[in-house]
Amino acid sequence: MTDAEVIPAVKEDEAALATPFVKCLVRLVRAQDSYGSWEGKPDAELLADFIVSKEKRREIPIIDDPDPDVLWRLDIYYAAVGLAIEERSCLMASPMMKISHEGFGRVILTAGRLVVLSRTLRDVHRFGFETFRKLAEAGTKLVDDAISAIEIYPDAARA
Amino acid sequence: MTDAEVIPAVKEDEAALATPFVKCLVRLVRAQDSYGSWEGKPDAELLADFIVSKEKRREIPIIDDPDPDVLWRLDIYYAAVGLAIEERSCLMASPMMKISHEGFGRVILTAGRLVVLSRTLRDVHRFGFETFRKLAEAGTKLVDDAISAIEIYPDAARA
Repeated sequence: MTDAEVIPAVKEDEAALATPFVKCLVRLVRAQDSYGSWEGKPDAELLADFIVSKEKRREIPIIDDPDPDVLWRLDIYYAAVGLAIEERSCLMASPMMKISHEGFGRVILTAGRLVVLSRTLRDVHRFGFETFRKLAEAGTKLVDDAISAIEIYPDAARA
Repeated sequence: MTDAEVIPAVKEDEAALATPFVKCLVRLVRAQDSYGSWEGKPDAELLADFIVSKEKRREIPIIDDPDPDVLWRLDIYYAAVGLAIEERSCLMASPMMKISHEGFGRVILTAGRLVVLSRTLRDVHRFGFETFRKLAEAGTKLVDDAISAIEIYPDAARA
């Protein structure tokens, strides 16, 4: 990578970290820092483990049980989606996730009587995003879709 | 119990076993009988473990992890609720359950984008019903409530 390429990449990361979804994610990660040991850490460092390059992805085996840290990140990722939905719609969206020890599963987020998000999960061992931009885009897309669902079925969402 | 009391109790059990909900439950239990070893067993015997008397309830400790057999019965019970909902509404209702090893948890059943049932579970160690009638009534009530929800939010349920 040349110098000319590095600067846009940094800018891109900054923009991604400033999105409402990633801010929610950061808030939730910081909320788990009971002893204040991450206080001096910048957001990018705090979320570093969410970034998994293509090469790294390929190296992660999917045979064993998923790593508890990966499951923790998955949990906090969907909790952040729920929090971002709440910020935009004022409706609490609570996640429910079930993952087999083989790394397959399902996650749903509900607001009132409405399923605002429903995803099948696979290969959770390798959960991660190539860049901060992709992390921000994926999370924001889930939030957008949920908000659309709430707009289509407002009564069920408020039930 | 005198003889005069025994006969109504048997009749009551028979009526309970004939309800659509309990029939769904029996079908799901029999579906797990891969080797046909329960073929000769009457339905009442097959469901015997769902019946937990008050005295027996009190004896079950709630300190240890819930018994895997109890979790299996809980799973199949809510799957039967889903199946009975499907019979009546022609909509597939799929359950999702999450239970901590302390016996607390939550179960939800969804049809399309609608949450047709959402329950908090506690003391699942002691999951059971006093009589077949109570088992039938409790299950039927869950199915009725879900059907009402589908009638109120038909579009979300068909989404």
